[in-house]
Amino acid sequence: MEILQTREDIRTWRDKVSETVGFVPTMGALHEGHLSLVRQSLAENARTVVSIFVNPRQFGPNEDYHRYPRTFDTDRRLLENLGVSVLFAPSVEEMYTAEDEVLLSLTRMSRLWCGGYRLGHFDGVTLVLTKLFHLVAPHRAYFGEKDFQQLRIVEKMVEELFFPIRIVRVPTVREPDGLAMSSRNSYLSPRSRAQAVALYKTLQYIQTLIPKYMLTEPLIREARLYLTDRFPEVKLEYLAIVDEYSLEPVEHLSQTAHPRALMAAYIEGVRLIDNLPLTIPADSTE
Amino acid sequence: MEILQTREDIRTWRDKVSETVGFVPTMGALHEGHLSLVRQSLAENARTVVSIFVNPRQFGPNEDYHRYPRTFDTDRRLLENLGVSVLFAPSVEEMYTAEDEVLLSLTRMSRLWCGGYRLGHFDGVTLVLTKLFHLVAPHRAYFGEKDFQQLRIVEKMVEELFFPIRIVRVPTVREPDGLAMSSRNSYLSPRSRAQAVALYKTLQYIQTLIPKYMLTEPLIREARLYLTDRFPEVKLEYLAIVDEYSLEPVEHLSQTAHPRALMAAYIEGVRLIDNLPLTIPADSTE
Repeated sequence: MEILQTREDIRTWRDKVSETVGFVPTMGALHEGHLSLVRQSLAENARTVVSIFVNPRQFGPNEDYHRYPRTFDTDRRLLENLGVSVLFAPSVEEMYTAEDEVLLSLTRMSRLWCGGYRLGHFDGVTLVLTKLFHLVAPHRAYFGEKDFQQLRIVEKMVEELFFPIRIVRVPTVREPDGLAMSSRNSYLSPRSRAQAVALYKTLQYIQTLIPKYMLTEPLIREARLYLTDRFPEVKLEYLAIVDEYSLEPVEHLSQTAHPRALMAAYIEGVRLIDNLPLTIPADSTE
Repeated sequence: MEILQTREDIRTWRDKVSETVGFVPTMGALHEGHLSLVRQSLAENARTVVSIFVNPRQFGPNEDYHRYPRTFDTDRRLLENLGVSVLFAPSVEEMYTAEDEVLLSLTRMSRLWCGGYRLGHFDGVTLVLTKLFHLVAPHRAYFGEKDFQQLRIVEKMVEELFFPIRIVRVPTVREPDGLAMSSRNSYLSPRSRAQAVALYKTLQYIQTLIPKYMLTEPLIREARLYLTDRFPEVKLEYLAIVDEYSLEPVEHLSQTAHPRALMAAYIEGVRLIDNLPLTIPADSTE
């Protein structure tokens, strides 16, 4: 595995490759979720590039940029063992200058949900991915469904700007109790960790109420009661039921063929997100 | 010459080409200025793609989108005769959908000068060029110095977003009397046409005042008097002396190694722009 750190080096490498290239952009602190992306890329492309770059532009001023977990040596070994061709790990100075002024924003989708609480977050994501896509020029890029809003934003950006790249969705990888894998899970104390399953349990609870409730207002109200009752230490940020294409909220599940529940919550100051597609049982009579 | 109209067709063509590709994006109504871009691309690349697309996103609501000159048959013949490989002429529906929401903006440079009067104009330019660059994937793209602010914005966008494209500057082509060639010159009545040299004459007049004046305030004041006196029917929009890298105004010519004068003016309702690099005579003692 080659470890490259400059724009020039990744360009030089890329110019020599004529086979298909898969790309997995990450912020490091790799877990089984990332590795499932890498494995899928390895299966579908002759070469796989993984980037590790903790992107300062997608963190707000009061967020965890400085304490975000950095485990480069472990990450490197994991990727080497899987058979990755290139690990691209640029410095902040390689990716940004003080004169940077481009704003690249999905003006609607990036302001919904997480975007409403993490101002500018998704603009930082779309900016860094545009830079990385231009450097790596992959045929396919892999994103996890765990960050579902990010996935849709990337899909929409690629579609609107005609990037010659196929975005591949990879299902969320969960711990045995259902907690979605996340680099931020490492922030959880043992006590918080026991509560962290609250997100997945709440999302599953919503599914159990369908088709008894098809209106989303009572679904969300019941789910909030469930969360407060069962996980009193978890502080909900948002819980929404949306059309998974537009990410717009729906009032009634019949309004969309693909409803999905999205949520974000804090546990002892640690912010976690999760989401689940909702299904309407075929024998639903409502 | 192949005439292609869809994203799919230009992609298919591009995927088969392994030689260097030059690209000249235009809005049609081709004149000698455009043709000089095309000739340079033909000289430097194995294949040249020219696009003709009157981009609605770079026109304001009260601007000339609908009356912008469209001379497709003449343009096609000119390009065919020069030896262009591909003319890409997509429809508006091929380039945009009602769901498009990406904003791509140079937040500083795009708000200066023309950007201050034509709100959103350069955001429309950077958006359409990003789409075209992704479709055509050229090695080099050619832009005229006549639209100098546009040229700098494109250079900055390519630099910041790491597009793997070299932007090539091509000097302004002028009519015998000095009027910069522009598709919008066709709007000029014979009477206006006689006045239209005002822009170039005013820019040249500034040069004659250097190094007598090195402060830009008196330079601009004298140039405005010259314009009012000699061309009373010309309505100045702006006249600025800037650093040609940043496009920021300078107070004294010694502040920049590359000063340039930029101006925009209306003649009987027709908006024209021009610019000129300023030189400081080597024996200047001030």
